[in-house]
Amino acid sequence: MVIVMSSKATEADVQVVTEHVEALGLKAHPIFGVERIVIGVIGDERLIQKDQLSLIPHVETVIPILKPYKLASRELKPEDSIIDVAGVKIGGKEMVVIAGPCSVENEEQLLQTARSVKNAGAKLLRGGAYKPRTSPYVFQGLGEEGLKLLQKAKAETGLGIVTEVMETADVELVAEYADLLQVGARNMQNTRLLRSLGKTKKPVLLKRNFSATLNEFLMSAEYILSGGNEQVILCERGIRTFVEYTRNTLDLNVVPAVKQLSHLPIIVDPSHGTGRHDFVIPLSRAAIAAGADGLIIEVHPNPAVAFSDGEQSLTLEAFQELMKEVGIIALAMGRNN
Amino acid sequence: MVIVMSSKATEADVQVVTEHVEALGLKAHPIFGVERIVIGVIGDERLIQKDQLSLIPHVETVIPILKPYKLASRELKPEDSIIDVAGVKIGGKEMVVIAGPCSVENEEQLLQTARSVKNAGAKLLRGGAYKPRTSPYVFQGLGEEGLKLLQKAKAETGLGIVTEVMETADVELVAEYADLLQVGARNMQNTRLLRSLGKTKKPVLLKRNFSATLNEFLMSAEYILSGGNEQVILCERGIRTFVEYTRNTLDLNVVPAVKQLSHLPIIVDPSHGTGRHDFVIPLSRAAIAAGADGLIIEVHPNPAVAFSDGEQSLTLEAFQELMKEVGIIALAMGRNN
Amino acid sequence: MVIVMSSKATEADVQVVTEHVEALGLKAHPIFGVERIVIGVIGDERLIQKDQLSLIPHVETVIPILKPYKLASRELKPEDSIIDVAGVKIGGKEMVVIAGPCSVENEEQLLQTARSVKNAGAKLLRGGAYKPRTSPYVFQGLGEEGLKLLQKAKAETGLGIVTEVMETADVELVAEYADLLQVGARNMQNTRLLRSLGKTKKPVLLKRNFSATLNEFLMSAEYILSGGNEQVILCERGIRTFVEYTRNTLDLNVVPAVKQLSHLPIIVDPSHGTGRHDFVIPLSRAAIAAGADGLIIEVHPNPAVAFSDGEQSLTLEAFQELMKEVGIIALAMGRNN
Amino acid sequence: MVIVMSSKATEADVQVVTEHVEALGLKAHPIFGVERIVIGVIGDERLIQKDQLSLIPHVETVIPILKPYKLASRELKPEDSIIDVAGVKIGGKEMVVIAGPCSVENEEQLLQTARSVKNAGAKLLRGGAYKPRTSPYVFQGLGEEGLKLLQKAKAETGLGIVTEVMETADVELVAEYADLLQVGARNMQNTRLLRSLGKTKKPVLLKRNFSATLNEFLMSAEYILSGGNEQVILCERGIRTFVEYTRNTLDLNVVPAVKQLSHLPIIVDPSHGTGRHDFVIPLSRAAIAAGADGLIIEVHPNPAVAFSDGEQSLTLEAFQELMKEVGIIALAMGRNN
Repeated sequence: MVIVMSSKATEADVQVVTEHVEALGLKAHPIFGVERIVIGVIGDERLIQKDQLSLIPHVETVIPILKPYKLASRELKPEDSIIDVAGVKIGGKEMVVIAGPCSVENEEQLLQTARSVKNAGAKLLRGGAYKPRTSPYVFQGLGEEGLKLLQKAKAETGLGIVTEVMETADVELVAEYADLLQVGARNMQNTRLLRSLGKTKKPVLLKRNFSATLNEFLMSAEYILSGGNEQVILCERGIRTFVEYTRNTLDLNVVPAVKQLSHLPIIVDPSHGTGRHDFVIPLSRAAIAAGADGLIIEVHPNPAVAFSDGEQSLTLEAFQELMKEVGIIALAMGRNN
Repeated sequence: MVIVMSSKATEADVQVVTEHVEALGLKAHPIFGVERIVIGVIGDERLIQKDQLSLIPHVETVIPILKPYKLASRELKPEDSIIDVAGVKIGGKEMVVIAGPCSVENEEQLLQTARSVKNAGAKLLRGGAYKPRTSPYVFQGLGEEGLKLLQKAKAETGLGIVTEVMETADVELVAEYADLLQVGARNMQNTRLLRSLGKTKKPVLLKRNFSATLNEFLMSAEYILSGGNEQVILCERGIRTFVEYTRNTLDLNVVPAVKQLSHLPIIVDPSHGTGRHDFVIPLSRAAIAAGADGLIIEVHPNPAVAFSDGEQSLTLEAFQELMKEVGIIALAMGRNN
Repeated sequence: MVIVMSSKATEADVQVVTEHVEALGLKAHPIFGVERIVIGVIGDERLIQKDQLSLIPHVETVIPILKPYKLASRELKPEDSIIDVAGVKIGGKEMVVIAGPCSVENEEQLLQTARSVKNAGAKLLRGGAYKPRTSPYVFQGLGEEGLKLLQKAKAETGLGIVTEVMETADVELVAEYADLLQVGARNMQNTRLLRSLGKTKKPVLLKRNFSATLNEFLMSAEYILSGGNEQVILCERGIRTFVEYTRNTLDLNVVPAVKQLSHLPIIVDPSHGTGRHDFVIPLSRAAIAAGADGLIIEVHPNPAVAFSDGEQSLTLEAFQELMKEVGIIALAMGRNN
Repeated sequence: MVIVMSSKATEADVQVVTEHVEALGLKAHPIFGVERIVIGVIGDERLIQKDQLSLIPHVETVIPILKPYKLASRELKPEDSIIDVAGVKIGGKEMVVIAGPCSVENEEQLLQTARSVKNAGAKLLRGGAYKPRTSPYVFQGLGEEGLKLLQKAKAETGLGIVTEVMETADVELVAEYADLLQVGARNMQNTRLLRSLGKTKKPVLLKRNFSATLNEFLMSAEYILSGGNEQVILCERGIRTFVEYTRNTLDLNVVPAVKQLSHLPIIVDPSHGTGRHDFVIPLSRAAIAAGADGLIIEVHPNPAVAFSDGEQSLTLEAFQELMKEVGIIALAMGRNN
C-alpha cells in the first residue's frame, strides 16, 4: 500500500499516519519527495481497509499494491489449473465446447439437440432448468422437471450436464443432477450462493457480470476457492457498454488478462456476449484465437420457437458449421479438439 | 410492435410474416414504403417474444412499441404512489432522509448514530446486518444480532428500520425486524428474491444495479408488484462508467425519467453513488433539486474505523450540515422536510 | 511516481531500475516489503514518460503520483478564477445563464430569441454559425453570415456572443465576432485548435468530450493555459454510457470534482447533456445545486422547425420558466442571479 | 420512419401529424392498435429531421427505419470494396499488416524499424509526424521533417507510407508524402477534415473514436465518400469502457457488424486497442479470426526509450513472432498473407 500525502502535509501529519499504520500491525516508510510525501506501507494490506488510512487528515490517496485475491492468483499457483467435468478436462490442451439450448423446454427439444451437438463434437450439454428472466411475465424454466430431462439426455448421450443454480436453497438439488454448476452473470456477486458453492464437491462455471472489473470477477472466484472448492472455471459473456449493434460487448481482452493473472481456465460465451446468432461463429473463432480454453454455445432445433434467447441461438446445422470453423482455428493454435 | 423487412423482401415474404403474426393471435398491417416494407403488429406484444418474429426470413428488425412493464407504469396509474414506512410517507410532498451506518457494528456505534441522525432530522434509520462484500476476507455483517441492535435503536429513537435482505431464505426473519426491506444493487435481478418480496406485506427499497437500464430497473420493480406487493420505492445509487474520480457515476437523469414513466417514488443514495464523503453534500442538494423524493445517507461516528464504506460515510457533524443545506433546497422546491 | 516490482524481482533488478531512474535525473528510493519491492521515485515525474520505466524487466506497474496538469490545478492557484466575458463575470458569486438557438438560422429567429432570453435573465447569447453535424447531408451552419447576425443581435440586445470555432484556420475570424469562443465536445482533443486558442486574447468555453476523463478534460484546458490564455471556462455536457433514456448521461459529479482539483469555473449544458427538452429544467436546477457556476441552454422560438437539436431546445416560454425555477435554487445556494 | 403516438392521442392528433408529414413531402399511414396508434411514414426519411415530427403534441417517439448512411452501406454496394494503397490491396483475400513506430523519432529508429518489419512481412509502414498528444508538455512530432524521413524509408524499403493528418490545413502537404492518410480517433468527427479528405485522391484510414457508435463511425466515412473519395478503410482501435486491465477495450464485435452493414474494409489496431504490448499478439490473432482485413501494429527497436506509446509497442523480435502466429491464423481463415 502506498499513501500519498497532500501537498500541505507536514512531518507531524506523517507521524500521525505512521502511528495509525503501526497500530494496524504494519510498518510505515515515508519518502520525502519534491512535491509530495509518499509513505510506503509494509505488510499484508489485504487485512486492513483502505478507509482506515485514507480518512486521516492530509492523506490524499491510498493506493493498494497487492491484488485483493490470493487463491485465484497465478502468483500463488503458477501452473494452469485443469478442471475435470465428468471426465472432460477444461484448462488443458483440449479446446472444450459446451452446447445446448438456453432453456430445457421438453424432452424432444432437449434430446434432439443433445444428440446433434454431440455428433458435431460438443463435449458437454448445457440447458437451463431455472431461468433468471428480466420479465416476470415470461417462461421461468421447468425446475426439477428440467433437471430430470437433462439427466435423461446424459444417460442417452453420455454428455456431462452444465446447468444454472440460482439460489443457496437449490444448490443441493441441482448438484445431484449437474456435472458443472453454473453461476449466472446476475449472480456473480451473490455472495451467499458463492459461499455455498465453496462447500460443494462439484465444479463451478462462474459467469462474469456485465459490469464486473477483473478484480471483482476474480474476487467472486476467490469466494468459492476460499470455501474449499478449487474447481472454478471462469466465463466471459459480454460487458455493458454504449455500443448498439450487439446486446452486450463481448470482451476478448479479458482472456489474456485472466491467463496472466490467474491459473483458472476461462471459456467464452459468444451467444450471450453478442446476443446475435449471426455473430456467434466469427466471435467463437476469435475467442479461441485469443487463447480461451473453450466455448459455451446456445443451440436450438428451431430458434424461432425457442422459449428464450432465440435470437442468439444457433440451429443444429449452424452449430455443425461452427464446430468445423472453430476446429480449424483450434488446430492452428496447437490445441486438440 | 413494428417489423422492418429487409430491402430484398417480397410480398411472399410479407405473407409468411403475416401468417406467423396471426398464428400468435395478433394482426399484421403491412405498409409498402419506398425502400422498405414495414409491418405494424396490432395486439399485446408483451405476450410474445421478439425472437419468434425476428428470425423469420427477410425480417431485418423487430421494434417493440410498448414498454415491457405494466404495473410500474404511470400510464396504468397516473397519480404518484405514496409509500408508508413506519408512519413516514415517501413519494409525497415530504422530502425523507434515511441515515445510518453502512454496517451495524455494535450497540454503541449504532445508538450514537441513531440518536444523532434523528436529532439532525433523519426520518428512518439504515444499517446493514447482512453485507454483500466484494472480498470473502472482510467483515460480512453481524446477522441476526445486528437486526436485534436495530430493533433496540428503534425502541429508543422511534426511527423505523431500513435494512438489506440478501436471500429468499432470510426474508421472513429480516421482515420481522425491518420496516423497509432493502434489495441491494447486486441483487436487483435476483428474481427469486424479488418474487419472495412480492409476497411480503413490508415495503421494499429496490436499489438500481450499476449497469441496469431503466427498463430493467422497472422490470425488477414489476416482479415485486406483480407478486402482490405494491409498496416499492426505487433508489438510484450510481452506474458504472469510465469515469475515474468517483467510485460510481451518480445518475440524476434517472430521477425525471422515473417520474415521467412510473408512479413509484425514487430516492437517491449519493454515498454509494459517488463513493466519496466529500461529494455527498453537493450531490444530495442536486438530487433533491432534480426532484428526488428523498435520500439515503451513510453516517458513522468515526468513519476512519468503520468496518465498511468509511470513505463514503459522513461524520455526525457533516450529516447535520447536510440536513441544513439540503433543507434549504427542499424548501426552494416547495417540499416539507 | 511509485514503481511496483514483480514478486520475482531481485535486488539486482532493483539496481537496474535505480540506474534508469537516476539517468532520467530523478532519485529512486526502494522499500522492501513482504510480498513486493516498491520503489519511490523523487523528482518531477511529469517530465518523463511512464513507459520509460514500465518496460524495464520485472517492473510490474508504474503508478503516477502527481496530476499531469499544473496550470489548471487548484494547488498552483488556490483561489477561484473569475473570467470576464463582455463584462459578465463567470466563476464568482453570480450564476450566469447563456442561452440561444443551437444554430443561427436567420435574422428573425435569432433576434426574437435574443430579445426573449435577455428579458428572461440570460446574460450571454449562444448560437452556432459553424456546426459539426454527424451527417454530411444536413445543415452545416451559415458560416460568416451567421456571425454577422450574431453581431447584429449583440448590437440590439447588448448580450455578449458565445459561438463555436471548429478549426485553427477560423480562429481569427470567429474571434472578431465572439466574446467567448466555444470548443465543441468533438474538438476537446483537437490539440492544434487548443494551441491556437492559447494565443488569442478571447476567453474560451471548453466543452468536455463524451468520453473524457477528468484528467483528459483538464489537460485540454492546460493546452490553452500553457499557450498563454488564462481565460478558460469548463463545460460539462454529458458522457457516453449504456443508458437509454437520455442521449448522453449528464454527469453532475464532475462539478465538485472540478471545484476540488481546479480553479477554473465550470458551467453545465443540460440541453446536450440529456438531449431532451423535458429534462432540461430539473437537471438545470440540479446543476446549480451541485455548485455549477452557470448554465448554457438551447432555446428556439419554434423547436419543431429548428434546423438542428429541436428535441432538446426549450421554447421561449419554457426558458422563462427555467429562469424562474433555477433562480430560486441559485438564491438557496446564496448566489446572485 | 415510424411515429408512435401517446396513449392519449385522438384521431384529431393523428390528423395533425399526417398534415405535418405530408407538408414534408412524405406520406403518413396510421395503424390503430389496441394500446397505441402508430403511424408509418413513407418516403426518404433521411431528408427530414426527427425533431420536426417528435415535437408535435401527443407524439411519443419517432423511430427511424433506414440507416442514416447510404454510400457506406452494403445495401447500395453489395460487393466488398478493395482499396489499393501503393499497390497493396486491402479488403480482398489478402491479410495486410501495417507496422512501424508510433512517432517518427529519427532516421536510424525509422529505417531500422522499416527494414525489420518489411522482412517480417509487413506490407505498409506506419509512423506519426504530427502527433495529437494528451499533454502539451510532451513530444508533438517532427512535422514535415518526419514526413521526409518516411519518404526516405519508402525509397529504401519500398513500403508505402501510412501517416496521420490532423488538420485541413495540412492535408495537401501530408498527401504529398503519404500513401494512406490516417484520421486519428480524436478527429473522427472533425467534419472539416473529413470534407477536405473527400476531395483528395489518396486513400484514407479512418480510425473509430473511443466512444463512437457504428452509425457515427459509418457516418464519418460517409462524409469522405460523399465528397467524392471512395477509398476509405475503417479501423477499430478500442472503445472506452469501465474496464481496468486495458487502456481501451478492443471491440472485435464491430468486425462482423461492419462486414454485414458496409462494403468498406476494416482493419484492427490492437496496439492502441489494448494499450499493452503483452496483449497485442493474442488480440491480433483474434482480430484476424473474427474476419478483419488486416492489422496496424506499433513496433519500436527499443520501446523503453520510445518518445510515445512505448507500453504498447512491440520490439522487432516480438513483431516477427506476431507475424508468424497471425500468419497461421490467416491461413486457417483461407487468407493469403
